[in-house]
Amino acid sequence: MNTLEAIFSRHSYRGRFKDTPVPREDLVTIMEMGLAAPSGCNKQTVSLIAVDDEELLKKLHSVIVPDVAQSAPAMICVLSQNIIAYRDRCFALQDYGAAIENMLIAMTDMGYSSCWYEGHITDRDRICDKMAAILGVPDDYELVCMLPVGIAEEPIVKPVKKDFDERAWFNGFGKKQ
Amino acid sequence: MNTLEAIFSRHSYRGRFKDTPVPREDLVTIMEMGLAAPSGCNKQTVSLIAVDDEELLKKLHSVIVPDVAQSAPAMICVLSQNIIAYRDRCFALQDYGAAIENMLIAMTDMGYSSCWYEGHITDRDRICDKMAAILGVPDDYELVCMLPVGIAEEPIVKPVKKDFDERAWFNGFGKKQ
Repeated sequence: MNTLEAIFSRHSYRGRFKDTPVPREDLVTIMEMGLAAPSGCNKQTVSLIAVDDEELLKKLHSVIVPDVAQSAPAMICVLSQNIIAYRDRCFALQDYGAAIENMLIAMTDMGYSSCWYEGHITDRDRICDKMAAILGVPDDYELVCMLPVGIAEEPIVKPVKKDFDERAWFNGFGKKQ
Repeated sequence: MNTLEAIFSRHSYRGRFKDTPVPREDLVTIMEMGLAAPSGCNKQTVSLIAVDDEELLKKLHSVIVPDVAQSAPAMICVLSQNIIAYRDRCFALQDYGAAIENMLIAMTDMGYSSCWYEGHITDRDRICDKMAAILGVPDDYELVCMLPVGIAEEPIVKPVKKDFDERAWFNGFGKKQ
């Protein structure tokens, strides 16, 4: 797949996954792509934990209520550190936004599907903290996102998006080319 | 360039640009890639303005103090809206993080170089607000980032990054494969 095709055909997948395991080297490649993302002032605020152990996956899914993507043979948990870039500025959210997007594009290119599960686990019930405890994550890291990794079994549904002209302009706000 | 190669060879470029103009269709493609990024609850909080008009570029650079990337023949300004995804949750920062990363990867693939200028323009002196005023951006949008677009004239310097083992693990925090 070429780069632009991979970026353009990445879509959130919320269906069932095939039970084909994800080779360890593919998880390494996906995480390498995530860590290749830029970070504000190169603070490298993002860390990652790949989970492919069946028992551990079950344990993690037991605290994800309601559960999502439970059929995925692997997941990547995204950790973020609130490291100050300079003075009072911290770019940790943007950093992990970029790292997650890199991994989603890489997965699309490699034939995997995924979905950016953030709000679902970082809500008031703090599922993320329960997952972090299971994974032994220290207090100065926050588990902010869970990405399932697997091969889609069902068709991928594309969301409806606004037209290009409603969101992109030239040489001034609202100016069409 | 294949996808993983483009992701891996994207680097921030802060040197001089060649004066080769950026064709309008390339700016369209780059922005399409940006808008193809996911957004929390599909709120599409990101909008974009490409600038390739020479006079307008000069005007914008006159308010960027100290100036950066002034030799780039084009720039893309990233606008963000604080749209609530649900209840009190807003994912606007993560949304534009993903959109910017898409554009940076697309530019790398297409032979362009760029740099994520965010802190430089969103600091206490609020250069971003002066740029937004020049571009006629309404108050409910914030100009959060400027991406120069052009062909690098100088070598691209790669930043030093931590080793994979210090940021990525398997089946538990700090666990090597």
